[in-house]
Amino acid sequence: MKKIAVLLMGCGGVGRHLLQHIASCRSLHAKMGVQLRVVGVSDSKSLVAPMDVLKEELNDELLSEVCRIKSSGSALSKLGALEKGGYRVFNASELSRETEEIAKLLGKSAGLAVVDCSASMETIEILIKAVDLGCCVVLANKKPLTSTLEHYDKLALHPRFIRHESTVGAGLPVIASLNRIISSGDPVNKIVGSLSGTLGYVMSELEDGKPLSQVVQAAKTLGYTEPDPRDDLSGMDVARKGLILARLLGKRIIMDSIKIESLYPEEMGPGLMSVDDFLHNGIVKLDQNIEERVKRASSNGCVLRYVCVIEGSSVQVGIREVPKDSPLGRLRGSDNIVEIYSRCYKEQPLVIQGAGAGNDTTAAGVLADIIDLQDLFH
Amino acid sequence: MKKIAVLLMGCGGVGRHLLQHIASCRSLHAKMGVQLRVVGVSDSKSLVAPMDVLKEELNDELLSEVCRIKSSGSALSKLGALEKGGYRVFNASELSRETEEIAKLLGKSAGLAVVDCSASMETIEILIKAVDLGCCVVLANKKPLTSTLEHYDKLALHPRFIRHESTVGAGLPVIASLNRIISSGDPVNKIVGSLSGTLGYVMSELEDGKPLSQVVQAAKTLGYTEPDPRDDLSGMDVARKGLILARLLGKRIIMDSIKIESLYPEEMGPGLMSVDDFLHNGIVKLDQNIEERVKRASSNGCVLRYVCVIEGSSVQVGIREVPKDSPLGRLRGSDNIVEIYSRCYKEQPLVIQGAGAGNDTTAAGVLADIIDLQDLFH
Repeated sequence: MKKIAVLLMGCGGVGRHLLQHIASCRSLHAKMGVQLRVVGVSDSKSLVAPMDVLKEELNDELLSEVCRIKSSGSALSKLGALEKGGYRVFNASELSRETEEIAKLLGKSAGLAVVDCSASMETIEILIKAVDLGCCVVLANKKPLTSTLEHYDKLALHPRFIRHESTVGAGLPVIASLNRIISSGDPVNKIVGSLSGTLGYVMSELEDGKPLSQVVQAAKTLGYTEPDPRDDLSGMDVARKGLILARLLGKRIIMDSIKIESLYPEEMGPGLMSVDDFLHNGIVKLDQNIEERVKRASSNGCVLRYVCVIEGSSVQVGIREVPKDSPLGRLRGSDNIVEIYSRCYKEQPLVIQGAGAGNDTTAAGVLADIIDLQDLFH
Repeated sequence: MKKIAVLLMGCGGVGRHLLQHIASCRSLHAKMGVQLRVVGVSDSKSLVAPMDVLKEELNDELLSEVCRIKSSGSALSKLGALEKGGYRVFNASELSRETEEIAKLLGKSAGLAVVDCSASMETIEILIKAVDLGCCVVLANKKPLTSTLEHYDKLALHPRFIRHESTVGAGLPVIASLNRIISSGDPVNKIVGSLSGTLGYVMSELEDGKPLSQVVQAAKTLGYTEPDPRDDLSGMDVARKGLILARLLGKRIIMDSIKIESLYPEEMGPGLMSVDDFLHNGIVKLDQNIEERVKRASSNGCVLRYVCVIEGSSVQVGIREVPKDSPLGRLRGSDNIVEIYSRCYKEQPLVIQGAGAGNDTTAAGVLADIIDLQDLFH
């Protein structure tokens, strides 16, 4: 039985689902000859770990208690109160030192997978340390990969030791497929993707003639948007995904060099207008312009899509007219889609399409990444 | 530098392209820290190998000579005539013993990838021996995986040591994606695929009202069909692909239990009618029935597709009505498409679409498989 030690950073929605998946896959993984051993779980303020990370693990009962506490909105530190031995809870001041300690103890020659399911900028330092210590790294968190090129190079130092499928299109096999294309020497000429479920939904609703303000309001009600819908409408999240794909293709690109079209003007930004004000007074002012663009596209046999285009040395993010009868043009609802053009997929692209968001799917992608690392473990 | 020794069986179209890809990817793979060392190439009658497989390899000059000979339609044995030392050519009677010898010398703990790019039933014995000897196995050849369950179990004894992306949809990342879904514990409920470029083309042309006989004739002229188009129209090739996917999902299914709808009746089979007779007198008799089915489908808002459906314990292969506006219904031309339904991809499936045939693409899939085995090598 191959044992993979896992240290999980971030146990919000995705992290919790990952812990649940790990527990429910015990017998499946045993049949595959793999056993996952959780040797640490942390949120932003605490770390829970067994007394002896070399020999012990956090058992499923404790993991389910972690999930219960986190899903109730509490902090991991609450666990301290039910200390029964068998595990330790470290506080914020000890957190990074103890995480590093575990990486030191287990990391050598890939004895540990450090998994980042947080949405934090703060994990990058410990991730780089983990790579240095010989650990594998699995990311659902986009931010470490979209930091400086210096950070990126350190994280991707050993490409086989890092997996990050769930940073683009949740569990959709985009990164795995791109890596296969790259390693077969098939040169990728262009990638076009609709990488935001929220903006995919918005764009396909606009097509039916509804005003932008109404569509965004509906998306918010359906829970498709962030609490402040401008986090989606800014295009920043799509740009991060585009940057990750571009860097995977070997392009030396930084966030600042990406041309991003925001769906709202600067003067309606979060610093200058409240969410309520934006939704009730701001966004209606954008309706007419978008409506005109939708009509113009339609008269060209096209529809509008909010896409990311990677081509040559550029990454562009914004609204594009695409032919109605292309895979992108036919996309409806909140699915993501990625079209990859290469020597092998020249006239007709390789297309990968499906749900590109959701905690369950995102966590499944992370788990597949962890299992795919198994050959690096003893 | 990680060295992967490769023994290639079958150097027809796919095998030749693989050798070319290997040679042209030298510097790319060096950057990735991997080096492919070709220690044997065989066709059905000969094996070429270096004098000392432990230390030497077939150099790129020789590999390109192999490609030249094979693309001119000659047999590998022709190489013998230009023997300049540095390599040996074994004849048919020595072929399997020498192949096994190389597997014995290199196989232990995955020192060798045995790659089957033939279309032969005959390779299965040596493949099973290679697995026993600790080799990795990479297949573009569907036949070994669609033999008896006993054979299948022996080949798939160590699932991490066998890769076969190019057995379904050429280089399309179908197997890799399914393996990820399986290992994440996301239960696959159903797979629906259009897995034949030829039949995909035929079906989408029928939709435009053309008669079957004319469409098949055109497909043959375009080089889309086998020399005898009945090899495509029988559905056997699609059934093989369906069986491979079903077995990957753990289903204990054999070829005989698959319900296959052939597009021609038994009395027009290859044993009873010549190709010419079939194309000129046979197939026109099938036009009317198909035309009626196309019309019936259209009146239901549907189109006909030749699909493989895997659901529960059954695999069915044949014509189905599918909604015009589903991914399958919108498929045009010779692209393949696979829809995967699971817990994560429930209402909307995970869709993978693109060119599912061609030597270049198929060989690229094989090469990606070989590179993906690297962590098993020293």
